[in-house]
Amino acid sequence: MKIDLKQAADVITKYKNFVITSHVNPDGDALGSVLGLAHYLKAIGKNVTCLIDDDLPANFNILPGYELLSKPGQIIEKIDLLIVLDTGIDRIGQIKELANAPILNIDHHISNNSTVDYLYVDPDRAATGEIIFQLLKFMKAAFDKNIATCLYTAIATDCGFFRYANTTALTMRIGAELLEFDVKPNLISEAIEKKTLTAVRGIALALNTLEIFKNGKIALLAITQDILAQCVSTEGFIDLARIIEGVDVAVMVKYVDENTCRISMRSKTTNVSLIAETFGGGGHIRAAGCTMHAPVGAAKETIVAAIEQSMEDSYNA
Amino acid sequence: MKIDLKQAADVITKYKNFVITSHVNPDGDALGSVLGLAHYLKAIGKNVTCLIDDDLPANFNILPGYELLSKPGQIIEKIDLLIVLDTGIDRIGQIKELANAPILNIDHHISNNSTVDYLYVDPDRAATGEIIFQLLKFMKAAFDKNIATCLYTAIATDCGFFRYANTTALTMRIGAELLEFDVKPNLISEAIEKKTLTAVRGIALALNTLEIFKNGKIALLAITQDILAQCVSTEGFIDLARIIEGVDVAVMVKYVDENTCRISMRSKTTNVSLIAETFGGGGHIRAAGCTMHAPVGAAKETIVAAIEQSMEDSYNA
Repeated sequence: MKIDLKQAADVITKYKNFVITSHVNPDGDALGSVLGLAHYLKAIGKNVTCLIDDDLPANFNILPGYELLSKPGQIIEKIDLLIVLDTGIDRIGQIKELANAPILNIDHHISNNSTVDYLYVDPDRAATGEIIFQLLKFMKAAFDKNIATCLYTAIATDCGFFRYANTTALTMRIGAELLEFDVKPNLISEAIEKKTLTAVRGIALALNTLEIFKNGKIALLAITQDILAQCVSTEGFIDLARIIEGVDVAVMVKYVDENTCRISMRSKTTNVSLIAETFGGGGHIRAAGCTMHAPVGAAKETIVAAIEQSMEDSYNA
Repeated sequence: MKIDLKQAADVITKYKNFVITSHVNPDGDALGSVLGLAHYLKAIGKNVTCLIDDDLPANFNILPGYELLSKPGQIIEKIDLLIVLDTGIDRIGQIKELANAPILNIDHHISNNSTVDYLYVDPDRAATGEIIFQLLKFMKAAFDKNIATCLYTAIATDCGFFRYANTTALTMRIGAELLEFDVKPNLISEAIEKKTLTAVRGIALALNTLEIFKNGKIALLAITQDILAQCVSTEGFIDLARIIEGVDVAVMVKYVDENTCRISMRSKTTNVSLIAETFGGGGHIRAAGCTMHAPVGAAKETIVAAIEQSMEDSYNA
């Protein structure tokens, strides 16, 4: 059932015991939204468990409450409401099976049409963290540095620190209001951007894989097992392809195992969310991803062909 | 003479014919502030010439009015006031000699103690563009998309798109207000970050020069003539050294000619402005630079020794 912010607040007010979760392969918006909401619910006396069914990126350990995040182990007892943030219910791993409770799903991905008890989707918001901010405002929450740091991180990471097209005046006003609570944007950005020396040297390896297709409109990085072993994280790599003059779609194909790749796409005009969806993925018009069951070489060919086709379709449209 | 915003407004109101300039090696704050102010002055019927005594980075050609910027050629006739933005009068090239007029100097660099007729320095502002915004507000300016785009660019570039420590709640509120005038942060950031394919491949070459000193606290990139020829621009390279875990000072030594290097420094704690000043340069605590009259190899040794010494002095302080 689709609900509005008031109904979301009502559902939260009604219950006592919450599990909050978000998507696998969690990013700043996922973790920041989960922890920002958790800090508030704890402050008003609710019981809250924060579960993510995946490994956590260490860079986000600057988030207050990071230590509260854990993987689900067994059937979750004593739960009144499962709150799913920043994703539909299809990307929360086994939490869907382990939590037998009504679901409140809050998200900013337009593709989210999950069948849940309570669904609030606002695709005009730059981040789910922005919606949580609005929800907390609606609930007259007393903000503090912990809540503000989590929500600032959520928002800033999903709009590329106020650089992407999803950044609105409201996004920046919320950012300003959160900064008033002694949030340190430099400490957040430094923690998120931090890489080991080996990983920085790995950028050079990744760049050596750079290939250009479709008269310079597509730039591709292929992160093989060897390169991945050196880099560990490929965070930010796709931006190196995205910034090339004339490139519309930047794509990164990353080794997961012998027969699986993770595909990430960033675009200036092409709707990469549509492309990702044809491979069972999703995202936003200008930033999307999917998993492909193929080795790196074959996945490269498949995704490049799909992007080329999409570009041709749009030229002909 | 030190003045306040009202006095700055009074001086501008009083005169009719202006030359506006900024520092050599101009950045987004320099160009955005000059053009933002120029748009306003033209709108209220003043005569304005915008001069920069240096080549202009092509990436900023998205700034409305970019075509108004030119190099000074000869003695400037018919000038009532020279407005110097974002620098003291020591870094404006030969404009100081060519313009025989009173000087209004507006800047956010704390090191600016220029001897001029009218000096307004506010080191608490993230960018000179922020001060121009405040001045225009004070003068009850009618903002438009041109002014807003220039000032947004000025502010966003100097605070690393709201990531650096100089970002305040006010910085973000001004950003929000400027976005209301249909400013497109994604188009600005894409234009500024844009690199040629060759330049992106050059990042790999630059990374191969990465050296670490002082137990990992100093990371250095050395851009030799050969690498520079391939990269053209080294914009953003220093960030690749800055993000390395444990690094306090990132430094880039860039070839200018056989016996001249440009040094850039970024820091997390060390006051790199002080170090730059000992070599005749300057800047901010966390971002500073200077020119060194030495080949790349010798300049590397000199600057690393100076940074090491500065770190030791501060540990002993």
